[in-house]
Amino acid sequence: MHIHSTLLDNAVTELSKLPSIGKKTALRLVLHLLKKEKAEVEKLAEALINMRNNIQFCSQCGNISDEAQCSICLNPQRQSHTVCIVESIRDVIAIENTQQYNGVYHVLGGLISPLDGVGPDQLNIECLLKRIQQQQIDEIIFAISPTIQGDTTIFYIQKKLQAYNITTTSIARGIAFGGELEYADEMTLAKSIRNRLPVNQLVNTF
Amino acid sequence: MHIHSTLLDNAVTELSKLPSIGKKTALRLVLHLLKKEKAEVEKLAEALINMRNNIQFCSQCGNISDEAQCSICLNPQRQSHTVCIVESIRDVIAIENTQQYNGVYHVLGGLISPLDGVGPDQLNIECLLKRIQQQQIDEIIFAISPTIQGDTTIFYIQKKLQAYNITTTSIARGIAFGGELEYADEMTLAKSIRNRLPVNQLVNTF
Repeated sequence: MHIHSTLLDNAVTELSKLPSIGKKTALRLVLHLLKKEKAEVEKLAEALINMRNNIQFCSQCGNISDEAQCSICLNPQRQSHTVCIVESIRDVIAIENTQQYNGVYHVLGGLISPLDGVGPDQLNIECLLKRIQQQQIDEIIFAISPTIQGDTTIFYIQKKLQAYNITTTSIARGIAFGGELEYADEMTLAKSIRNRLPVNQLVNTF
Repeated sequence: MHIHSTLLDNAVTELSKLPSIGKKTALRLVLHLLKKEKAEVEKLAEALINMRNNIQFCSQCGNISDEAQCSICLNPQRQSHTVCIVESIRDVIAIENTQQYNGVYHVLGGLISPLDGVGPDQLNIECLLKRIQQQQIDEIIFAISPTIQGDTTIFYIQKKLQAYNITTTSIARGIAFGGELEYADEMTLAKSIRNRLPVNQLVNTF
């Protein structure tokens, strides 16, 4: 693209590094910002820097947090005896949007995937086991995308949990195999939390 | 959207103010940035602020510029006797991308549109007439989107130019009536610059 302004070109280049934003879209966004007040552009820039520099991960569940512990773990209204295991922060947001769940979370930060070189050690699993030993946890809900990696991860954690007296359930498989959890509509996701199944039943259908 | 982090929520809110970026896309972009180095996020933020705070408009042609005059006007290799009149900066970039044009530009900053309350006085036309009086200009090319507003603007400027001995041409009407110039593919746009027509011929087909 022939942009005869280094300032504009830099802004376009930086924006087009973002996923799904090409040069033409970036130019459109930059020209939009050019028409906005300076203060508005600064607000956007500062929000991004603040977010990146100050965000923390909850020491208990691994969710993103403004403080050392996230607002879900700290909320006394949430049932801390029920823990929902998810792959990522996006899944926490997706489940929160259904407004069907009142327990707490545990964010794995990925799924076991030998092909990608991701083993159990790279995930937030050790911390989950410690949490189970130290706290009173009655039920663990797996809200994991129904893919091969997802099922492998459930199976691995399920095995580790056998030593403890904890009910393990999985969100109902209303979502098609191979689908991504975060793209499910809220109705489907809400239903699949309500109709959660014992993991044993799920494992048998492998 | 239930995002339990003010830092994340702010970043998503600010990003989703941009055109064609909804909450879900904004969240995706923000979570992408969260995985990047702090320095990279700062680079993006600074590029946006720098662009907004320091960009100028060329005192001669109205194009965006890093200095008081833009790099196209200052380039001695460009034919300053030929001036291409365009609606906006985007059109300058689109024409530069064709690599078919070696003259200079004049950016109107809009088109005459009585329904939107935009008259000739709000556009960069007075400055064009001054430029014609002070400089040696042989040809003026109208590279204006073929819409009613575009044709009205061409007609208005063409009338003002009758007092001067200047050849006026228009890019060929290869672009469908009602189409937007910036979305034309480079081949069509390149052809329409090469096959430009005398404005009289164009006006007769109104």
